[in-house]
Amino acid sequence: MANISNKAQQMPASAIRKLVPFADAAKKEGVKVYHLNLGQPDIKSPACALEAIKNYSKENISYSHSAGLMELRQGLVEKYYKNIGIDITVDELIVTVAGSESVNLALEIACDPGDEVLVLEPFYTNYNTFAFMNELTLKAIPTDIHKGFQIPDIEEFEKAITPKTKAILICNPGNPTGTQYSKESMLALGEIARKHDLFLLSDEVYREFCYTDEPHFSAMNIPGLEQNVILIDSVSKRYNLCGARIGCIVSHNKDVMTAAMKFAQARLCSPVLGQYAAIGALDTPESYFKEVKEEYIRRRDYMIDALNKIEGVYTPLPMGAFYTIAELPVDDTEKFAKWMLENFRIDNETTMVTPAASFYKTPGKGKNHARIAYVLEIDALKKAIHILEEGLKAYPGRTL
Amino acid sequence: MANISNKAQQMPASAIRKLVPFADAAKKEGVKVYHLNLGQPDIKSPACALEAIKNYSKENISYSHSAGLMELRQGLVEKYYKNIGIDITVDELIVTVAGSESVNLALEIACDPGDEVLVLEPFYTNYNTFAFMNELTLKAIPTDIHKGFQIPDIEEFEKAITPKTKAILICNPGNPTGTQYSKESMLALGEIARKHDLFLLSDEVYREFCYTDEPHFSAMNIPGLEQNVILIDSVSKRYNLCGARIGCIVSHNKDVMTAAMKFAQARLCSPVLGQYAAIGALDTPESYFKEVKEEYIRRRDYMIDALNKIEGVYTPLPMGAFYTIAELPVDDTEKFAKWMLENFRIDNETTMVTPAASFYKTPGKGKNHARIAYVLEIDALKKAIHILEEGLKAYPGRTL
Repeated sequence: MANISNKAQQMPASAIRKLVPFADAAKKEGVKVYHLNLGQPDIKSPACALEAIKNYSKENISYSHSAGLMELRQGLVEKYYKNIGIDITVDELIVTVAGSESVNLALEIACDPGDEVLVLEPFYTNYNTFAFMNELTLKAIPTDIHKGFQIPDIEEFEKAITPKTKAILICNPGNPTGTQYSKESMLALGEIARKHDLFLLSDEVYREFCYTDEPHFSAMNIPGLEQNVILIDSVSKRYNLCGARIGCIVSHNKDVMTAAMKFAQARLCSPVLGQYAAIGALDTPESYFKEVKEEYIRRRDYMIDALNKIEGVYTPLPMGAFYTIAELPVDDTEKFAKWMLENFRIDNETTMVTPAASFYKTPGKGKNHARIAYVLEIDALKKAIHILEEGLKAYPGRTL
Repeated sequence: MANISNKAQQMPASAIRKLVPFADAAKKEGVKVYHLNLGQPDIKSPACALEAIKNYSKENISYSHSAGLMELRQGLVEKYYKNIGIDITVDELIVTVAGSESVNLALEIACDPGDEVLVLEPFYTNYNTFAFMNELTLKAIPTDIHKGFQIPDIEEFEKAITPKTKAILICNPGNPTGTQYSKESMLALGEIARKHDLFLLSDEVYREFCYTDEPHFSAMNIPGLEQNVILIDSVSKRYNLCGARIGCIVSHNKDVMTAAMKFAQARLCSPVLGQYAAIGALDTPESYFKEVKEEYIRRRDYMIDALNKIEGVYTPLPMGAFYTIAELPVDDTEKFAKWMLENFRIDNETTMVTPAASFYKTPGKGKNHARIAYVLEIDALKKAIHILEEGLKAYPGRTL
């Protein structure tokens, strides 16, 4: 029997999915599980995207150009980015296999094995996975739940930068925090990137899910930082087409795009049916985003209020995406989440949350934090949070 | 301006695509280019696959399980693999983003950075790219065009194996050679893998494109090698759905599948629309493959005969896939291919072939070899080969 590589053995398993067997066991017993742990929205895709699929009329499905179908690239540049004030040419955009591939590409284009990347903690756990795969070290800059996870004083970045630091990786608005960064914060980040000649890898896949009046400020619009910014974006997430797996990587830096093209050629092309859905999605009316936002704001407002009414629970008001990080009055949210799935039911229903420790790099941090998504309808959220509240009262490891 | 990583700088560009700008320039002049260089088949996809897409009726496109839709996994196990005599369970198969992701996964699961992988030369150039990305060394075992690129004496493998060798990577039937390996050859390969405890990574994406009476013998059926074989497979290529980007990785080795699952979770899921097309494709009637094979055999027979009739050209009869490697009477096929695109026309038409040096690891080898695909209809092949023949007579670097 041949042995698998050390790399494959040491590759971290998805912390988010660790509790899935316990949820499955509960479901087998006939228990209904409210999934506050998942970011799988129930929102409809735009009709024009689904129509584009139904209208696929070719007799086979052949490869596209490795950079994506020209119609999609041009459409993204002219119908989408231009419209939101990001000015790019077709050569500055390559279609990827969703935001996931863009993150991985951005990291490997910016960094060699052994290099360091600064991230704001808590961060999307798969940043850890992609860093591991590329033999990079993530260095966490702490943020504070009581300050809404905003970008801390720039001094914190200065302290963390070493000669091995090659990039800052941000998510704006953020998964898991829902935090949206202000223009001022982005300019400050730009300043530090310029000063130390770092890449700013800006994951903006939740850009269209912002709930403040302040417009989203893209890293692409930081003056003078054009050669340092790599934009990580998703098309499929924007239009509730998550499974279509279409994203893009964007940069004004020619070397970055030349390198991205070489990586893109190695995997031949992005999924073509998803590309057609994405072309269709480009005609999505403004009213679609307006309705989606209004719905998320309703859900968010209900949920944040309900959570903060629970004794010992604190969560800030997220301004984007569809998650929040909440501090719970428990010893360990992983134990609590497991306990809920195994032991706690009201009318044969229970609630599942995501323990947030895996969103932190600093050992011990986030142990009493959970990520809670508001992708369910309000009636379901009501029940789910009631069960959570009662569970917190009954949990043996409560700290109140 | 931030500098991209050394890795991204050194990443090899696709050698196959290097000549594309010269083809584009010819087309701009109004010249028709016969693409004998591309493996993009013009064959129709099965109607049941295209129907499955038209019938997609959900209101959004959400993520699938990271291992793929259960209906597809079960369908592949029960409707496809069982039918061709490969006996696996659902747990032994994970749906991937086409064969490309499977190759990459197999390499990183089998090998750590610095490890060595044996390949039969000439081989699919992207093996080089994926090896580079994973910091592996490919060690080439030479094969002989005059022996139909068959697996050489097992002694050649023994000579190449070092303590760093972790795997043998084969493609059967092969791109670029079209060679199909006999059961005896596969058993001999199995023997050497077992003796040195190597993984046998078996790329069988062209399995349904075999043109001999001898049935295809899969590495999955080498007795006693169950724990060493990783099968690299494509679903989309099999059904002329290349752009759908659906493949799979298969192994009886639990550690391999556990590791594959961790990598699969990092990229969330395979393209879901492609997965539905693949589910539809599982009902493809036998007659479809029969017709496709008959068409390829007609094209192959015509092309191989026509090539071998040209003075100084030699190519063996490929038994699978839709390529052949031909020896041309020229100093350098790269120069020749470029010269054809820039200088040679008959009735304002020219022919493009792929220089084969990039399919070889040994420096200088394959310099007078070209990969020639037979994916065009016979009338087009006739014209293309006539132009190639006349071009060979006129080329200043001819060696006859």
